[in-house]
Amino acid sequence: MNTQPTSSNLTNEIIDSFKKICGNEYVITNDEEKEKFTHDQTESLRFMPQVVIRARTAEEISNVLKICNQSLIPVTPRGAGTGLSGGALPNLGGVVITTERMNSILEIDEQNLQVITEPGVITEELQNAVKAKKLFYPPDPASKGSCFIGGNISEGSGGPKAVKYGVVKDYVLNLEVVLPSGEIMWTGANVLKNSTGYNLTQLVVGSEGTLCFVTKIVLKLIPYPEHDLLMLVPFKEVEKASEAVSAIFRAGYTPSALELMEIDALKIVSKEVDAGSIPISDDIAAHLIIEVDGNHEETLMTEMEAISELLQNFDCGEIYFADSSAQKESLWKLRRKVAEVVKRVGYTIEEDTVVPRYRLPDLIKGVKNLGMEHGFTSVCYGHAGDGNLHIRIKKEGTSNSQDDPEIIKSLRALFTLVHNLGGTISGEHGIGLVQKGFMDIVFSETQLNLMRGIKKVFDPNNILNAGKIFD
Amino acid sequence: MNTQPTSSNLTNEIIDSFKKICGNEYVITNDEEKEKFTHDQTESLRFMPQVVIRARTAEEISNVLKICNQSLIPVTPRGAGTGLSGGALPNLGGVVITTERMNSILEIDEQNLQVITEPGVITEELQNAVKAKKLFYPPDPASKGSCFIGGNISEGSGGPKAVKYGVVKDYVLNLEVVLPSGEIMWTGANVLKNSTGYNLTQLVVGSEGTLCFVTKIVLKLIPYPEHDLLMLVPFKEVEKASEAVSAIFRAGYTPSALELMEIDALKIVSKEVDAGSIPISDDIAAHLIIEVDGNHEETLMTEMEAISELLQNFDCGEIYFADSSAQKESLWKLRRKVAEVVKRVGYTIEEDTVVPRYRLPDLIKGVKNLGMEHGFTSVCYGHAGDGNLHIRIKKEGTSNSQDDPEIIKSLRALFTLVHNLGGTISGEHGIGLVQKGFMDIVFSETQLNLMRGIKKVFDPNNILNAGKIFD
Repeated sequence: MNTQPTSSNLTNEIIDSFKKICGNEYVITNDEEKEKFTHDQTESLRFMPQVVIRARTAEEISNVLKICNQSLIPVTPRGAGTGLSGGALPNLGGVVITTERMNSILEIDEQNLQVITEPGVITEELQNAVKAKKLFYPPDPASKGSCFIGGNISEGSGGPKAVKYGVVKDYVLNLEVVLPSGEIMWTGANVLKNSTGYNLTQLVVGSEGTLCFVTKIVLKLIPYPEHDLLMLVPFKEVEKASEAVSAIFRAGYTPSALELMEIDALKIVSKEVDAGSIPISDDIAAHLIIEVDGNHEETLMTEMEAISELLQNFDCGEIYFADSSAQKESLWKLRRKVAEVVKRVGYTIEEDTVVPRYRLPDLIKGVKNLGMEHGFTSVCYGHAGDGNLHIRIKKEGTSNSQDDPEIIKSLRALFTLVHNLGGTISGEHGIGLVQKGFMDIVFSETQLNLMRGIKKVFDPNNILNAGKIFD
Repeated sequence: MNTQPTSSNLTNEIIDSFKKICGNEYVITNDEEKEKFTHDQTESLRFMPQVVIRARTAEEISNVLKICNQSLIPVTPRGAGTGLSGGALPNLGGVVITTERMNSILEIDEQNLQVITEPGVITEELQNAVKAKKLFYPPDPASKGSCFIGGNISEGSGGPKAVKYGVVKDYVLNLEVVLPSGEIMWTGANVLKNSTGYNLTQLVVGSEGTLCFVTKIVLKLIPYPEHDLLMLVPFKEVEKASEAVSAIFRAGYTPSALELMEIDALKIVSKEVDAGSIPISDDIAAHLIIEVDGNHEETLMTEMEAISELLQNFDCGEIYFADSSAQKESLWKLRRKVAEVVKRVGYTIEEDTVVPRYRLPDLIKGVKNLGMEHGFTSVCYGHAGDGNLHIRIKKEGTSNSQDDPEIIKSLRALFTLVHNLGGTISGEHGIGLVQKGFMDIVFSETQLNLMRGIKKVFDPNNILNAGKIFD
């Protein structure tokens, strides 16, 4: 047996014991069935695991982890595989444990405004289930229709609503987790405030499955806001659009979404998705999508008017108000489809930069300058209200994949710019495999060593999602 | 030299080197001047440090820590000494480093809605400074007029506004810290969203000075709400009052404060603080203080009326609306003074229990039952909207201090009740020295060992605030 976790420690006898624990049909070894577990939404990366386990309970996972921990076998936790950083990829082979059968919402606690759920529930289904009780779980990643809540917690996801309501971490009260040793424990308590010992809950959120396996999740809910208003605002200059973003907050408004789309993104996506009555003219450079929400429609009207007026100072064009819910849905669909569609025309890799909100114009200008210097084109869009800009670059004569040396050089320049603007390399996607090589831009060895030390406390044998975030 | 950190390793030569680093006048060795550093707001505990250092910069602290780390000398970080769990007490003697000279607000960044501050700034002064620019830092512990922001971060503080706006942790974006090794680093970036590696920032918040020394703090700010409305609602039964709390949220309202005071607390405090026109009648058992805030006064009026109507279902008495800002101030002053005044009449120890909001009635009933069983009386008040109830108990024939065996027995029963209700032992005060003995009620050895392991990663020689939170 090797002394480092390796897939070669995984014998047929061990696979048999997995079958005894989880049931024959839930332990998959044939390549055809395993294929879908070899990749996620991260471009070009493919890794074949030896075995995929469709576990149902924390106890099953506990028993599997005990064996893997003793026998030094790499384990990769996996949700829906919609990640953009390679967190769910079995880069070392070995065992993939998927949560797709752990898909029950266990309790919607209407009295305490909490939901207890298993990790394999689709985020949008969770949102709809609590909405039926007039409750709101705001975090809404673009992939909400297919991603799992467990993956959202592991990657520290966000989404458009984060600007007013915060990201996933702001809703996680408590987690049931299985440690690599097989021990099952809760990270905290189901309470709104907690100063009892170190915040293990927030340490696990965003740890990308490297510390433990999340098997139950307690989320805070809030009352569902009764009304929302939505508008699309065109700007002649991208910089003016991003300057307007800061001005809105400075004037005392907190929209429930404040998204930016460069015109290229909108043009490309409108070819594939019906833009309905949404105007897309040629003399504009970018749009802001602005939403406000709350319980008093009149108050929202007043706010929206005040924001519209303020935007006139930034050379905006004619504002389109989405009046019906169908119009709102069209507009959001356009926004959510951007990533998928621009990827199809060659902008394969989505970066997830984040800077202090006011530095957004500098970031956008800087990206375009870097493009000229390094010979790439770029499409920018994302959560402008949070300073969280998704950037996709394309460079002729390269493979446009994250392991192309030319692309790596360009990304290194891009992330260095982000760091110099006071920002960092991931706002909501995580580091996983694909951003790992850039961690030295934003973290010193001291900082990385603290993280490595924490990893070792939870996972001394390094069996759980090893090789992600850092080496 | 001892192999475990001990005050006996602190020689005169070392004290001389502290003087060279920080300046003679800022290194205090005489008992009279050191006396105020022997205690905090935790009853009865007194520990004399050998030396108190009034450091000014992270670099000074770095140089002092390097020496203490090499020579194995215990170090206790200290803010204003207003803590209620003994976190700032030099329980092992040695060195106290106080942040009282690190009291500059470094930058109020109006564009990014952030403030960068040193740890020794008084919380209320920070709030006022940003309010002057129409910005809002909501967390407002009762001691806000004297506590330091650094202490708030170390203890994970809350306050009345937490119910709508969240606690300290929800506003901390980034921290400059000095590790026990003397290395100075930032825990994250000054951004609103961050999925880049483990969340070291949230690990440090609430770690009570056991992991590192916080020297700079970056806080998120929000627009200051323009209006607020406040009311005091009497109830004939405490349970009805606490049932009403859940009903308010369930009906879709999120007050900016929702406080509960048992009548005993109000009666005691009204003897010392002018209650103005606030009615205190004899047939009531408890009051709720309810505040709503926002930018639209009319909307707030509508909300307040709807809440008032809802409360009629819970047998409430005549509602008192605080109309003028003087009336509001009186009412808040009454609430904030409760702890201080009830302490003077013998309810010496403030517990900081927190349960899921809807379990509040069960907690209050349970406390009274335990009182009958164990022979103590109790006064309850606190942040009912968060399920965070401060409980003070008094037992005839005991010293009413936290080291009295009879008191310990009663507290153990109380915390067990809290745990059985799904709650935990501290919502906003921290564990420090005085709650440490009860950690086994809410955490298993597995959980505590993870915390101990994390401590060791940051502080392998155990020099920083050793003996706090856990042994």
